[in-house]
Amino acid sequence: MSTPFNPVPAERVGDQSASIWTEFAALAVENKAVNLGQGFPDGSAPKFVTDILKKISEKPEMVDGHQYTRGYGHPKLVETLAKWYSYLYEVAVNASDDILITVGAYHALYYAFLAWINEGDEVIIIEPAFDCYGPQIKFAGGVPVLVLMKLPEGADRACDFQIDFLELEAKINTKTKMIVINNPHNPTGKLFSYSELQRIANLAKKYKLIVVADEVYEFHVENTFNVQGVWKMEMVRFASLPGMYERTISIGSAGKIFSVTGWKLGWAIAPKKLLAPLKAIHQNCASSCSTPTQLAVAEALEYEFPKYLFRPFKSYLAYKLPKEICKKCRKMSEMLKKADFTPIWPDAGFFMLADYSKIKNFPNFKESIQEESEAESDEPEPQVEVEDPADLMFARWLCREKKIAVIPLTAFYSTNEDKHANDKMIRVCFFKKDETLNKAMKVLDKLSQ
Amino acid sequence: MSTPFNPVPAERVGDQSASIWTEFAALAVENKAVNLGQGFPDGSAPKFVTDILKKISEKPEMVDGHQYTRGYGHPKLVETLAKWYSYLYEVAVNASDDILITVGAYHALYYAFLAWINEGDEVIIIEPAFDCYGPQIKFAGGVPVLVLMKLPEGADRACDFQIDFLELEAKINTKTKMIVINNPHNPTGKLFSYSELQRIANLAKKYKLIVVADEVYEFHVENTFNVQGVWKMEMVRFASLPGMYERTISIGSAGKIFSVTGWKLGWAIAPKKLLAPLKAIHQNCASSCSTPTQLAVAEALEYEFPKYLFRPFKSYLAYKLPKEICKKCRKMSEMLKKADFTPIWPDAGFFMLADYSKIKNFPNFKESIQEESEAESDEPEPQVEVEDPADLMFARWLCREKKIAVIPLTAFYSTNEDKHANDKMIRVCFFKKDETLNKAMKVLDKLSQ
Repeated sequence: MSTPFNPVPAERVGDQSASIWTEFAALAVENKAVNLGQGFPDGSAPKFVTDILKKISEKPEMVDGHQYTRGYGHPKLVETLAKWYSYLYEVAVNASDDILITVGAYHALYYAFLAWINEGDEVIIIEPAFDCYGPQIKFAGGVPVLVLMKLPEGADRACDFQIDFLELEAKINTKTKMIVINNPHNPTGKLFSYSELQRIANLAKKYKLIVVADEVYEFHVENTFNVQGVWKMEMVRFASLPGMYERTISIGSAGKIFSVTGWKLGWAIAPKKLLAPLKAIHQNCASSCSTPTQLAVAEALEYEFPKYLFRPFKSYLAYKLPKEICKKCRKMSEMLKKADFTPIWPDAGFFMLADYSKIKNFPNFKESIQEESEAESDEPEPQVEVEDPADLMFARWLCREKKIAVIPLTAFYSTNEDKHANDKMIRVCFFKKDETLNKAMKVLDKLSQ
Repeated sequence: MSTPFNPVPAERVGDQSASIWTEFAALAVENKAVNLGQGFPDGSAPKFVTDILKKISEKPEMVDGHQYTRGYGHPKLVETLAKWYSYLYEVAVNASDDILITVGAYHALYYAFLAWINEGDEVIIIEPAFDCYGPQIKFAGGVPVLVLMKLPEGADRACDFQIDFLELEAKINTKTKMIVINNPHNPTGKLFSYSELQRIANLAKKYKLIVVADEVYEFHVENTFNVQGVWKMEMVRFASLPGMYERTISIGSAGKIFSVTGWKLGWAIAPKKLLAPLKAIHQNCASSCSTPTQLAVAEALEYEFPKYLFRPFKSYLAYKLPKEICKKCRKMSEMLKKADFTPIWPDAGFFMLADYSKIKNFPNFKESIQEESEAESDEPEPQVEVEDPADLMFARWLCREKKIAVIPLTAFYSTNEDKHANDKMIRVCFFKKDETLNKAMKVLDKLSQ
């Protein structure tokens, strides 16, 4: 008998285990939980955007609506993006050279790392960080170098998260090729100030680094409606800093901007020379993106532009969106406080961190499992559960027992040491329809009972 | 003064030059040519398909229509695909384990190579071949090993293209990991027969190869309406051959099936173990695909299934599509014959090869350039044009001078040697609206004048 067919996957494949997102998406469904986990609005997308897709769907004969479009992006989409970002960056963004349309921002990040990182190149990541950076950098052969951002004891505002710039500079060496900035920051909700960004810019210049600026929540800034009223934040796009356009790959997302995360459309913007290798990889990978949604986003952005500039109170991006998220943010903050969480007030984005240390009736899983395994010593000790950080166990308990799904903060740290040192918080997405928020409120109200 | 910022792209990026597609798309626009080049229908997409997208667009509040869906594919899409392909392969295809939705078939191919090919692994390609296989395999570190398919002298049917199976077997060694089958075949239009596929299956079994079966034109088979009436071909899906499902990664395309190439939706189907590494790479790359188009394709496939099975004459895929392309194929063949081309009658797909050797008034560019450069010996010789294969020069001439864009056959060969030995044909896409075909006819009618 011949040996069985048992091929070995490519080495680059690595870990095939499910991510935290897969675990919590499944757990939420299983437990019919209110889902505040993954970052998508479950309310209505803006009708003026979906109406454009409807119009395109009504014309099956429309070649530039339903057939292959330009590989690097639909001509109409890159044209309008060039206009928008030339204004926002105060730099002349070239439509045909400087913009690449991708399958969401996630995909743009993948291209950025694959295009610029060789085996052993180092990339600075500021943790906590959106959890795809690390794996994507490693996939490209790179080494993520972590700089921790810390919240001082007792602080309850995301803007208080601080980078130690001396530590950051000390971690740069000859192998360092790139730094990733996520602003507004996920999961903390921090908006970096001009002076913080300028310090990063100075380092980028001094050490000739490429900057990947993941700015997908760029319009989710509660600047106009800040409830605390004390400070007014403003979104500073990294590429708009003096001399930074030439070294920055900016990442944006139509899915986030227009609350249509399922359309999976994003972009990378950079000067021609910096973008060309991403385009070369795109030619081998997806080669082009969905035409109808590209055209719909193009027309929606075109429609919004004069409003954003000249009639902000009529504008979705300048007014309606920030007003809506600010309202929801306030509601979530109140709900969490009432339930004995300590929320960390975000500057921007649609996530909020919350400390759960004061929640009294969360059983200490570690101890109970420990006791159990000591009592029945024949049984193998459930190592994994015991070694899991406390917030992961809390989030599982919250989902299984209380029917509310959130993401543990430690999902955004990559080393076990950092996970265990930061295991007292969870992340909630508050950009949910009122019905969902009200359901969450009912659950939270009963939490301390 | 400090040295300028001049970073070096990752080694994997390689060649950044524009592909033949980019050249001819631009050339067609520049010359306002009738475009028979790229493989997309420029007529109407089936209205029942775009109507479903319209229905989804009318519901901006529909979470499973506009927000992130399951990463490996919308639940409704994988469910219906499992049903379709369980029927077509006569194997139980598992919806959640065996199907991965991708950004078109192109993207599925990228995943297949990246997931299974290590540095130095060899992959058999049958040339002429769709021109992305080679670069994608090389991008994954693999080595494409070419087996030529030949058309006997004087043959004028695509089914006469023959593989030398002794040569194929001789090229397999311990480094060979995979073979790529493209059926129906692009660019020739050949449909592989059961016995040809069985011989490939035997080799795959004997040498434990993974088979990538690119079957994107699986429904574009003119079997029912063959005009020559002599032989009746049938589409044999590779995964349906005895014992082949377990080693085959089948690639399909919603864009091709429903004439919505711009929707960029495709899939890879394989048993769980073979598909898992593709899923792992997908988690790092696109992570999920467009929700509204996935849902629309799911509903269109679901609507079609009972028709396809029980009322074929009411079915788009079983009747309307093959009838339409057969009609267009016949028209194109007649047009080409009249203009002194020798068309090669395809079995399937929407491409046709045609020999242009009899076209009399195509100036011999090689000679004229040669003469010119001899006359003015001060000028540098235009090396590139002179070294380009004859069909590429013919296609450029046809586009520039006669305003009709086609693709030279040599675009589908990867070595210079093979290009120069096969430079007498062009490929045309005949799945174009009548208006386009009529315009092409006018041009062709005047070609020999």
